[in-house]
Amino acid sequence: MDIARYAEFYRDKLLDDVIPFWVRHSPDRDCGGYFTCLDRTGKVYDTDKFMWPQGRQVWVLSKMYRHVRQEQEYLDLARLGAEFIRDHGFDENGNIYFALERDGKAYANTCIFSDCFCAMGLAEYAAAAGSEADWARDLAMKTYRGVQDWLVNKEDPYSRFIPGVRPTESMAFDMINVNMSLELDSIINDPLFRQCGLASAERILNLHVDRKEGLVFDNVAPDGAHPDTFGGRVILPGHALECLWFLISAGDAWGRSDIVTAAIETIPDMLEFGWDEKYGGFFYYRDAAGKPPEQLEWDRKLWWVHCEALVATLLAYKHTGRAEFAEWFEKVHEYTWDRFADPEHGEWFGYLDRGGEVLLNMKGGKWKGCFHLPRTLHVCWQLLDDLSADGQG
Amino acid sequence: MDIARYAEFYRDKLLDDVIPFWVRHSPDRDCGGYFTCLDRTGKVYDTDKFMWPQGRQVWVLSKMYRHVRQEQEYLDLARLGAEFIRDHGFDENGNIYFALERDGKAYANTCIFSDCFCAMGLAEYAAAAGSEADWARDLAMKTYRGVQDWLVNKEDPYSRFIPGVRPTESMAFDMINVNMSLELDSIINDPLFRQCGLASAERILNLHVDRKEGLVFDNVAPDGAHPDTFGGRVILPGHALECLWFLISAGDAWGRSDIVTAAIETIPDMLEFGWDEKYGGFFYYRDAAGKPPEQLEWDRKLWWVHCEALVATLLAYKHTGRAEFAEWFEKVHEYTWDRFADPEHGEWFGYLDRGGEVLLNMKGGKWKGCFHLPRTLHVCWQLLDDLSADGQG
Repeated sequence: MDIARYAEFYRDKLLDDVIPFWVRHSPDRDCGGYFTCLDRTGKVYDTDKFMWPQGRQVWVLSKMYRHVRQEQEYLDLARLGAEFIRDHGFDENGNIYFALERDGKAYANTCIFSDCFCAMGLAEYAAAAGSEADWARDLAMKTYRGVQDWLVNKEDPYSRFIPGVRPTESMAFDMINVNMSLELDSIINDPLFRQCGLASAERILNLHVDRKEGLVFDNVAPDGAHPDTFGGRVILPGHALECLWFLISAGDAWGRSDIVTAAIETIPDMLEFGWDEKYGGFFYYRDAAGKPPEQLEWDRKLWWVHCEALVATLLAYKHTGRAEFAEWFEKVHEYTWDRFADPEHGEWFGYLDRGGEVLLNMKGGKWKGCFHLPRTLHVCWQLLDDLSADGQG
Repeated sequence: MDIARYAEFYRDKLLDDVIPFWVRHSPDRDCGGYFTCLDRTGKVYDTDKFMWPQGRQVWVLSKMYRHVRQEQEYLDLARLGAEFIRDHGFDENGNIYFALERDGKAYANTCIFSDCFCAMGLAEYAAAAGSEADWARDLAMKTYRGVQDWLVNKEDPYSRFIPGVRPTESMAFDMINVNMSLELDSIINDPLFRQCGLASAERILNLHVDRKEGLVFDNVAPDGAHPDTFGGRVILPGHALECLWFLISAGDAWGRSDIVTAAIETIPDMLEFGWDEKYGGFFYYRDAAGKPPEQLEWDRKLWWVHCEALVATLLAYKHTGRAEFAEWFEKVHEYTWDRFADPEHGEWFGYLDRGGEVLLNMKGGKWKGCFHLPRTLHVCWQLLDDLSADGQG
């Protein structure tokens, strides 16, 4: 494959298309933070502030400033979000809400993933802004420690499941913990990150990654068994591929080649299992046993699932040089840029129907913000640059 | 339209197709209650017991026994479900769980709608079984009173929404309360049912039915205003049509022609708004302002939505004799029997994609059980018989 051409493509899309879209349309200069509910053209269609995308956008803009271009606008906009999180995001126990009204009044209670994404955003902002933002570093560290405390019992006061009955380990927490720990480890000097991140990585490998079946199970029994229930059977190809590339990065950074190898070896099976042979693209949900999934949106094609597949395949290619990963990368590249991209108004549509037609005529919402796509473009561009320098192109 | 032919059709489908499917495939004679997760052929693919469909199937089988055919099998199977509810469904506070394992061990906490559907099931069972089932009548009454107490504050310990912020009235509770009150009123002699049912009906008319816009809003502010939020904008055509026919029935039974008239006048607008002009069928969710809905399954075609549309149009036709309602009934009849029905293995598929293709290859699951379709067939058959007798055919 033409590595140099791909590198240029991903860089251009990041710098000339996707980042400008969010810089132009998302800042709420009156109330702070970002609008994420943007229609196809970038116009705001809902003013609520969801804390996942707030934290994530702070992370992206700070990362851009620190690693790509020292544009004052990136830093200023990262501050707009970081200060909104600081001023409105936390409840009295130091946990972060799920959703606020435009002016910062919380209406939906705390959610552990809000803590994770905001901790990542605040830490990256602190690294980008330097000593003037020590407050952000301290807040990130405090929030990170809160998440680690929570992971011991994983108590969710809002869960309808009866504690102790049908105990289930959910991969989502450990998966985000690997990513968050890795990110903070590159910014703050503390052995805690490696220790907690590796503990999560090992739980994922021991419990959720089923090497025999070639599948990654989101919900398992405490011994890793697969209950024959809706939750026990469900597979999220996007979660699996995202988690696998987190594991490769973590194993790589923390000197654990066994984790890298195990993750890479599971990728081909997950790609095959997740791919829709009839219409192309990856399914959102599938039932491991081929039974009817409970999610009515199971066959939708989501932007983030495909973003994670681009990173996973390219990272696996960089590690192994195996042609199958390059071929998968090019196949996913072709599918995504043909269907998700909007050449007319920029950025990507987030949600397609099974056949690849646009399902929701918008660029952002409650879940889609400035995160998966710019992260993918940045990581792929860097990987492609590295590959080019290694002469693997 | 050929009323007599339709009457025969709905009767035959009820007696020779749909009821036999559930009688044959759903009873769990070892552990009690019913399996509802049935594949296309009726084979059990998941053994969990969800309490909504347990209560609902008890109601259908008891109703069949009392109003259609005194088949001992119907009564025996109703008892199988009623005793399962009695023995395993209740928590220590007398509220009914959401989900149990096959043997009756609860794993998902209480849910007010479980109480409603089980109260309806137990009351109808008591009426069918006679004095031997006084326990069921007492349990139904106790559960009904619990729901009325709950409706005062509507406290949900598992809700993530922060109490007092952005207060919202949800139509679902009042809508089911109208239906449940009406059902119990026909069985147990207590003025409470009329009083509580009418209070709910009035709240729906005052708050949720927007006569000016011709829409029924599921979530409104306490003064009936429509917040410009995802929740405030969402319209569920199926909910709306189901609620409107509950209101017609309630107004009719309780001598409130104003309620009947208001409900009937809203039906044509809701039919138009809900109908998919491109592919036919009713959407599951739509945004009142034409903004992107948050539900990725918004354009799916669901069996129950179409069942409620059949009843609503036919009931409105019976009340008014207006040709538009007959035309809508025939249009929905044609759409549903062409696409949802499975002539090969009986019953209906529950979920189609927007284009009308089968999305989930099954007849039952967590939500679809023995309820909406047999209720629709029974109600439509009765309405058609009445119309035929009135010479409106």
